[in-house]
Amino acid sequence: MPREFRLLMEKSEKKRNSRLILALDVVEENPEKIFSRSMSIIESVHEYICAIKINHHLILPLGLFNGVKRIIERARELELPTIVDCKANDIGSTNRIIAENYFRAGFDALIANPFVGWEDGLQPIFEVADKMGRGVILLIYMSHKAAWEGYGQNVYDPTSGRVEPQYIIFAKKALSWNADGAIVGATYPEKIRKIYGILGDSIPIYSPGVGVQGGDIETAILAGSYYLIVGRLIVEADNPARTAKIIRDRINNSLKRIKKLI
Amino acid sequence: MPREFRLLMEKSEKKRNSRLILALDVVEENPEKIFSRSMSIIESVHEYICAIKINHHLILPLGLFNGVKRIIERARELELPTIVDCKANDIGSTNRIIAENYFRAGFDALIANPFVGWEDGLQPIFEVADKMGRGVILLIYMSHKAAWEGYGQNVYDPTSGRVEPQYIIFAKKALSWNADGAIVGATYPEKIRKIYGILGDSIPIYSPGVGVQGGDIETAILAGSYYLIVGRLIVEADNPARTAKIIRDRINNSLKRIKKLI
Repeated sequence: MPREFRLLMEKSEKKRNSRLILALDVVEENPEKIFSRSMSIIESVHEYICAIKINHHLILPLGLFNGVKRIIERARELELPTIVDCKANDIGSTNRIIAENYFRAGFDALIANPFVGWEDGLQPIFEVADKMGRGVILLIYMSHKAAWEGYGQNVYDPTSGRVEPQYIIFAKKALSWNADGAIVGATYPEKIRKIYGILGDSIPIYSPGVGVQGGDIETAILAGSYYLIVGRLIVEADNPARTAKIIRDRINNSLKRIKKLI
Repeated sequence: MPREFRLLMEKSEKKRNSRLILALDVVEENPEKIFSRSMSIIESVHEYICAIKINHHLILPLGLFNGVKRIIERARELELPTIVDCKANDIGSTNRIIAENYFRAGFDALIANPFVGWEDGLQPIFEVADKMGRGVILLIYMSHKAAWEGYGQNVYDPTSGRVEPQYIIFAKKALSWNADGAIVGATYPEKIRKIYGILGDSIPIYSPGVGVQGGDIETAILAGSYYLIVGRLIVEADNPARTAKIIRDRINNSLKRIKKLI
């Protein structure tokens, strides 16, 4: 039984024929400029994207119930789901407060780190999400250079004697905890493929890291990514609308070619 | 060469004869009440504590540059260092934004998760801290029930063939990255002792989890904790000042007894 958030994402994807998620990571010298630039980017690219991901680039300078809430409200008018990339990794009582605040402000899903575990860890976030009909997306393998240090390390289970990569353990937790999405960096296509091998089509893979970080769209999709998350490439473009359209079309063309291949 | 933040903490400890850090985790029905309650708690307990730790309980409802900044300013007037418990675990470019915003708002130190690694991970946070003279405290073993899932897991190094607990790897990283503090839950005194065995007196151990979560002050200090972080026990007390004083005195009495023992 998928949560409401997953149906929302599927509806948005179909409506715009897009699997492109905008990471609205705007950098400007003051909050007013960050806000106006964010709003103008949304206005220009909304027909090419299926959702918006917001992180501390906006939350800290604008405030959650101030500027960020207004951005979420505009996204709602445009029927664009919003995801908060807060990478929640606190103890249960604080995680509950985190989820309640972000969902109350209007976010449709939040991103959390499974490293913190279940009991008195992520459990309250899933409970709040269930209660409010929102989504939880888990970090399975991040896109940055040092991802190997944590996500790529080998974990030894003294009871079974087995050694498994951290990201495989996380992917299995995503399944057993009934997560709504799995973040895997487009910069590591071989990890996408292995994680897809565990998740199959039951939990969609969200891949950041295309563009500035070096990930390739077609390789990521071929390996198993479902949604592509793109930030700086669009946000810092001279013409964000044109760039977003090009990326959206490139994703769709890759999907067509892959359908022929497989 | 310790960062300014560590000297600030030592000065504050001496001034008030206290190793008690207040976790200002206030829960109220609206932002106005959260703000006024937070301010009144600070006014009543400030002579018994050596620092204030603030997390998403305040940041999300109040806003960083709104209510939280005003709380930090009041703490500065009282010469109380402030620590933001944001558990940063993002990619480098976002971590840089996180550190810049929190430090610009006035926080003296931030808490980060070493799981994210160094390159394009926590490195920018340490760079910003160095530049602005602030501190970085790392999570080594959290206080909640599921901490064993991540912090307590065994990591296998295929090159050396060695197996090491995650928290030992994190403690070694805290040393090599020159962290200003190490968070270890008071709920796990045997982990405090092992981590103290690695850090010695070069990086102070900060221990949350006393009181509601079940940690014991004297056991934690005996095992190697330097600072005790207490939230709900004080924040939800009928008389926060009296409770803070009792805890501060209990810490100091434990220190005296331990000095005689060792």
